[in-house]
Amino acid sequence: MVQLFDDERLDYLLADESMQIIQSPSAFSFSLDAVLLAHFTYVPIKKGKILDLCSGNGVIPLLLSKRSYAQITGVEIQQRLFDMAQRSVRLNQLEGQIKMIHGDLRYMQPELGQSSYDVVTCNPPYFPTPSKTEHNKNEYLTIARHEVFCTLEEVVKACKLYVRPGGKVAMVHRPGRLIDILTLFRAYKLEPKRMQLVYPKKGKEANMLLVEGIRDGKANLSLLPPLIIYNEDNTYTKEAEDIIYGK
Amino acid sequence: MVQLFDDERLDYLLADESMQIIQSPSAFSFSLDAVLLAHFTYVPIKKGKILDLCSGNGVIPLLLSKRSYAQITGVEIQQRLFDMAQRSVRLNQLEGQIKMIHGDLRYMQPELGQSSYDVVTCNPPYFPTPSKTEHNKNEYLTIARHEVFCTLEEVVKACKLYVRPGGKVAMVHRPGRLIDILTLFRAYKLEPKRMQLVYPKKGKEANMLLVEGIRDGKANLSLLPPLIIYNEDNTYTKEAEDIIYGK
Repeated sequence: MVQLFDDERLDYLLADESMQIIQSPSAFSFSLDAVLLAHFTYVPIKKGKILDLCSGNGVIPLLLSKRSYAQITGVEIQQRLFDMAQRSVRLNQLEGQIKMIHGDLRYMQPELGQSSYDVVTCNPPYFPTPSKTEHNKNEYLTIARHEVFCTLEEVVKACKLYVRPGGKVAMVHRPGRLIDILTLFRAYKLEPKRMQLVYPKKGKEANMLLVEGIRDGKANLSLLPPLIIYNEDNTYTKEAEDIIYGK
Repeated sequence: MVQLFDDERLDYLLADESMQIIQSPSAFSFSLDAVLLAHFTYVPIKKGKILDLCSGNGVIPLLLSKRSYAQITGVEIQQRLFDMAQRSVRLNQLEGQIKMIHGDLRYMQPELGQSSYDVVTCNPPYFPTPSKTEHNKNEYLTIARHEVFCTLEEVVKACKLYVRPGGKVAMVHRPGRLIDILTLFRAYKLEPKRMQLVYPKKGKEANMLLVEGIRDGKANLSLLPPLIIYNEDNTYTKEAEDIIYGK
């Protein structure tokens, strides 16, 4: 139905096997972070416009299409990943709802407009710009994981640019950047309203954070119940399982 | 052994009943927040200097004396609470280790010195300045709970003033002020290094946060495992019990 290149393979998304996604070990495979973000974010159910930045292979737009009838736009800077995402959209016959764009989130205003999305989601690169050696090993993964093309501040600035007043911006990141995220969200008038910390196991430190801000919102942060991913025996906890398998 | 006034009573601190504290329903009774802060904060074990601001009836200095041989100074602005604290120190024969001072944390530099404490702890008033009606109902409780005499920024500024470079500042507060706390800590060069969220029950939003910063520290925040206080049947969880009863 769609062509696969190189080491690409088809993986199922969600337990009901109603959706497939093109992955590639050498170029991009989605992570738990994206799945949790797609579950955490608010979405308008019946109509509206959602924008996903740093979209990778399109995992977040695909998952959101299960939760919402809104129009979903995904932006990805890497041609190869954009192409994977676009083929996955076709594979799932979602061309009517999801539009993938190949572009740089910093300079998309002519195409995306300004202050026009109800929700903006983003699973940005987590790590600072890498050394040249690291960079040369695998360009695709390096760009997806490191701040090669955009800093966290540029990402937050872009979210602010495209979200409408009163609209929501949801992001996933690492605890080490918690203060930066909250400070940048506030600086760009995306007042943080909900935050959830994700812990790999009971008794362990958090290794992920989910945060949602409202453009021009009033200061009042809720800290959602902790989300713990694994039981002691390394099986998924009930709550993680429900999210990951889309129950 | 010590005199009790008005509605004052003696309560035990810790399960081994080795320590007592003077409380008063109309003036001040310590809360779980103080107990958790006294457990959360780093302390030097054998020697050093600890400062507790907004000390109330002295609960934090009393609890810390069980964890450390350091000299502990407590500062309280309300004469009546200061007096309760001082009698509790005498009652427990801790005059050699704990010194209570009656004063305003904003103007204590002549007495406390500058940049001289290894650790500063503070359980500050949580709520904004109250209306005059509320104020008139109970002056003691109003001052202990509301930002009557000091704002959060003044508290953080004082912590910075008294802690030594490389020393630690630990505070407990409500989630609604999380961003303010982290921002103020960073602004006053008390880089947040450890944070723990406290949840009343499994599946509930956090209602307390504990944070520790290091003066002039490098940015790198750890998010400790969540602390859940009550089981479904309203008994204390094992971890809460261990802290509260000092096991």
